[in-house]
Amino acid sequence: MSLDIPDVVIQRLPQYLRSLRAFKNKDIALVSSTNLGAESGVTPAQIRKDLSYFGKFGKQGQGYNVEALTNDLTRILGLDQSWPVILLGVGRLGKAILTYPDFTPEGFYIVSAFDSDPVIVGTKVASITIKPVEQIKTYIRDNNIKIAILAVPGDSAVNLIDEIVQAGVKGILNYAPITPKVPENVQIQNIDPVHSLQTMTFHLSEINSNPNN
Amino acid sequence: MSLDIPDVVIQRLPQYLRSLRAFKNKDIALVSSTNLGAESGVTPAQIRKDLSYFGKFGKQGQGYNVEALTNDLTRILGLDQSWPVILLGVGRLGKAILTYPDFTPEGFYIVSAFDSDPVIVGTKVASITIKPVEQIKTYIRDNNIKIAILAVPGDSAVNLIDEIVQAGVKGILNYAPITPKVPENVQIQNIDPVHSLQTMTFHLSEINSNPNN
Repeated sequence: MSLDIPDVVIQRLPQYLRSLRAFKNKDIALVSSTNLGAESGVTPAQIRKDLSYFGKFGKQGQGYNVEALTNDLTRILGLDQSWPVILLGVGRLGKAILTYPDFTPEGFYIVSAFDSDPVIVGTKVASITIKPVEQIKTYIRDNNIKIAILAVPGDSAVNLIDEIVQAGVKGILNYAPITPKVPENVQIQNIDPVHSLQTMTFHLSEINSNPNN
Repeated sequence: MSLDIPDVVIQRLPQYLRSLRAFKNKDIALVSSTNLGAESGVTPAQIRKDLSYFGKFGKQGQGYNVEALTNDLTRILGLDQSWPVILLGVGRLGKAILTYPDFTPEGFYIVSAFDSDPVIVGTKVASITIKPVEQIKTYIRDNNIKIAILAVPGDSAVNLIDEIVQAGVKGILNYAPITPKVPENVQIQNIDPVHSLQTMTFHLSEINSNPNN
């Protein structure tokens, strides 16, 4: 498979997958790129272009087979396996993440959680006993962990990222309000509500400065 | 100002702003696009292109004045004003959002929070008394609220979005695990950790299937 697939394309695939499942739930077996586009909020042309990176899907004039495309996208996205995940930082946000109901149905299992606060270490959240952060590297190596969720303050995040990457983590879901640099073979996705709000206020300010809008 | 600025460009501006502040904190007054690129993780050419949408910044061979560009981006992003924000849904995630320390320094103030659960309504989190969700439309109208953060389950989200948009909300930060359709003049940013993880596993599967990587 080509490694030259643009990131924006890959980022749209989970949305297509979700839309396909919505069709499946409605017992719809075939969809056109127009149907899929209406459900995903992406133009039909873009969908056809995105999918063309991965081979030939759908038949001219017949549309896509919902089940087949669901299976293909599941496999392409690596979701035909389950992924053990560790959580670093069990403050308020970490606790919310530990009890988030939508990871497990998608194959992401939080198998262990770590904190530096001795008051938190040893307590139990959602049936997981919080371990001391000092054990993190050993745990990653012993359990071949590839994905970590980071819910620590910005100032502790940078060092922690170095440590877990050294120990073998290849994918980081980062909630710390920083944009860390990671080696090229490590994936990082930053979840940053302030960035998201700032992107919106750009547009809201335009509305404000144009009362006709 | 042109309305044809690509969303990806706007989404990078908060990152440039954060990088500029990092330079300012180090008392650096002038930066090249190479410096700014190294700090932001964006190529210098992309930075020059992104900024060119908004006018002429920096002088050939001199780089950007950190303070001036900070002020310009702050204004462009609408961050020279403060934004009252309401929160819908005060479960575990909502509580973490209410106590999130990074909104206020950026000019985002959570001024009120709403829930449908009578056990939660009337309680106080981070000095905010939770109001019943029935009051939401009146509150939005009376207080001219433009931004809402949604931290409710997916099945309640769709109806709530209709209500708050009717009442005048123009920007939604959505934590519900759905990708709702909104009118064209409404901004929505979806924060979806499962999507983010699924984007990573695409790459991690490639690594898995190629042991030389």
